[in-house]
Amino acid sequence: LHTCRSRSSGVPFIVYALTTALLTVAVLAPASAAAQAQRPPAFVRSPEVNPDRTITFRVFAPGAHLVSVGGDMIQDQPRRPMTRDSAGVWSVTLGPFAPDIYDYTYQIDDLVVADPANPSLTLGPRGAQSLIEVPGDSAELWDARRVPHGTVHIDWYHSNVIGGLRAVYVYTPPGYEGGSQRYPVLYLLHGAAFTQEGWTTTGRANFILDNLIAEGKARPMVVVMPYGYPQPATTIGLNEPMRRDRSLFAQDLIQTVIPLIERTYRVDSDADHRAIAGFSMGGNQSLTIGLTHPAFFHWVAGFSAAIPRRQSVQEETFAEVLDHPDRTNRTLKLLWTACGTDDRAWFPPNKAFAELLDARGVHHTFVTTPGAHQWQVWRRNLIALAPLLFAR
Amino acid sequence: LHTCRSRSSGVPFIVYALTTALLTVAVLAPASAAAQAQRPPAFVRSPEVNPDRTITFRVFAPGAHLVSVGGDMIQDQPRRPMTRDSAGVWSVTLGPFAPDIYDYTYQIDDLVVADPANPSLTLGPRGAQSLIEVPGDSAELWDARRVPHGTVHIDWYHSNVIGGLRAVYVYTPPGYEGGSQRYPVLYLLHGAAFTQEGWTTTGRANFILDNLIAEGKARPMVVVMPYGYPQPATTIGLNEPMRRDRSLFAQDLIQTVIPLIERTYRVDSDADHRAIAGFSMGGNQSLTIGLTHPAFFHWVAGFSAAIPRRQSVQEETFAEVLDHPDRTNRTLKLLWTACGTDDRAWFPPNKAFAELLDARGVHHTFVTTPGAHQWQVWRRNLIALAPLLFAR
Repeated sequence: LHTCRSRSSGVPFIVYALTTALLTVAVLAPASAAAQAQRPPAFVRSPEVNPDRTITFRVFAPGAHLVSVGGDMIQDQPRRPMTRDSAGVWSVTLGPFAPDIYDYTYQIDDLVVADPANPSLTLGPRGAQSLIEVPGDSAELWDARRVPHGTVHIDWYHSNVIGGLRAVYVYTPPGYEGGSQRYPVLYLLHGAAFTQEGWTTTGRANFILDNLIAEGKARPMVVVMPYGYPQPATTIGLNEPMRRDRSLFAQDLIQTVIPLIERTYRVDSDADHRAIAGFSMGGNQSLTIGLTHPAFFHWVAGFSAAIPRRQSVQEETFAEVLDHPDRTNRTLKLLWTACGTDDRAWFPPNKAFAELLDARGVHHTFVTTPGAHQWQVWRRNLIALAPLLFAR
Repeated sequence: LHTCRSRSSGVPFIVYALTTALLTVAVLAPASAAAQAQRPPAFVRSPEVNPDRTITFRVFAPGAHLVSVGGDMIQDQPRRPMTRDSAGVWSVTLGPFAPDIYDYTYQIDDLVVADPANPSLTLGPRGAQSLIEVPGDSAELWDARRVPHGTVHIDWYHSNVIGGLRAVYVYTPPGYEGGSQRYPVLYLLHGAAFTQEGWTTTGRANFILDNLIAEGKARPMVVVMPYGYPQPATTIGLNEPMRRDRSLFAQDLIQTVIPLIERTYRVDSDADHRAIAGFSMGGNQSLTIGLTHPAFFHWVAGFSAAIPRRQSVQEETFAEVLDHPDRTNRTLKLLWTACGTDDRAWFPPNKAFAELLDARGVHHTFVTTPGAHQWQVWRRNLIALAPLLFAR
């Protein structure tokens, strides 16, 4: 127990906030010659969504030569240059854009970074992107409405398969806590640029399920979102190059994640009550794992799935269903794929796969939508898929 | 249902990963003149912890003039300049540093940013900082050890007090799921540069509790980590200037968060089983709320608390305990404050407060530690505090 003489320092309370702010600035941004020449403004509002649904992007970078913004609101288009004002703030107004959630980055000379003024970020295995929502006239299905909200759990587990600590996000629907009911489970996988938190942070899977359940359009279900790369969690320990062994993710899912979920949560543990879906890299995983593990999954879906392009490779990869259409049609409750028609890389193989399934007589649904390889498509895919799952 | 003619595109599977990687690069980093002149390396390893516990920081910024790194491994020291190699990668090796977790940012000309190569980030209300751990010879108490792990829940709620959607992180100890026991609750508050996820991402409160519980040193408890600013969650919707009304946070905690926790989780709901603690801004909140709500909290702690400096303001703020020492000593189970001796801003008022408590005869503990205003202090404060809580 240490004490000392009281000193009446004569500084009122609000000073704590100011001192903290100044200390923060001192730690974060002291002393390049350029920064001393031009002090950063106290608050850069970026991005700002204007009443006409345009977005103004801003960034303080007085010494930069070339600053631009890119993102999926201008998907497949060149980055847009920004212009510098006398205070050293670069800005540009783009749009108007349809109500939706968009990710974006700045390029400041050579450096690609998230917006340093925007606290809303989505994490990737190689850095972060910023997020901005253009609101519509009423709350969208991916927005938090005034309905009961489920909970997103972060469960940490050691994977013997992968040899490290991993995190899995688990959505439980409203009423799960304190109830006694068992729920079916959707395993929901992310694409190559994301992590286990992508489907909630950018995808809003939790609010989508909250809203569909509140409207009686989807059955209450548990949604399990693992990390799609076969390596330890990016959010802990050291970063490292991405491992390439595809089979490890499947092994971790089947041998570690599913048993963890089924001993931790009140869920049904049979294939009629397990679904698997994902987009892009995760669409490849959901189709390959789902269709080669019929004892585990009777509901299988791929969004803009990054599946093999060559027919012979599709035939080999999916032989389990293609060579046994009658058995597949008896067993599988749903085989559902979707792709945006502007998705130049992945629309052709997804169309080809749908035709191959037709040619072999495998029951399935292939949905084509507007859009490219982007979250604007995948959120709507989940909205379309969830009501179909676990239908009686 | 749309299908089309199958096309055998003749591209093997691995192309999906490469195509995705190229599309990602195309979206993230096309086309400034400078970037075209010097192409980014495929993989920049940053940061890299070397065997001698030095850290090498790297960032690709070929067109920059002045690049430096700052962070709490060099707390209170100037940023360290980095040097550019022929490939356009700036680097510097610092240290060696003691085994710990450090946050850092780069300053690239005028721009302060998180490390774009490091996926491990901690979020703030005004942008992110990067995290790096220097491991010790054995796992520290803040590391994930091979012990049972609790779960961190993200609960979303609408706050009528604040008028918006907020998120609260809730740690439940190993064995909570599927059990029937009730637990005491620690309300754990963050400082000004963080959000509701700071205490798990940077503070590792979940692993600290896992480890202390596994060793029998802390009672299993639920830990509730709300967002400390009186405004909607930064991770959703638009950013806005920080609101200044201090009383709103207290109202939200007492009127919304505590009732939410007590109807959602199996927790005890009396003051003998509620603790409140926090650091910096959160230390101010924990002491002011805790000591003015004796019907709610019988365990109160502040780490490097940003409390009023003037004695008369301390006397006014904490009149409830200072003017009624006998009642306070009968009621409060613990009043525990701690501060690092190198914390120039906040050590003096915390020492003064301890002396004031002594002068009035209020039982309390004031712990002085090495260190400044930094997470290296606060993780150890939690390790010291948790075993004292809810002792019989």
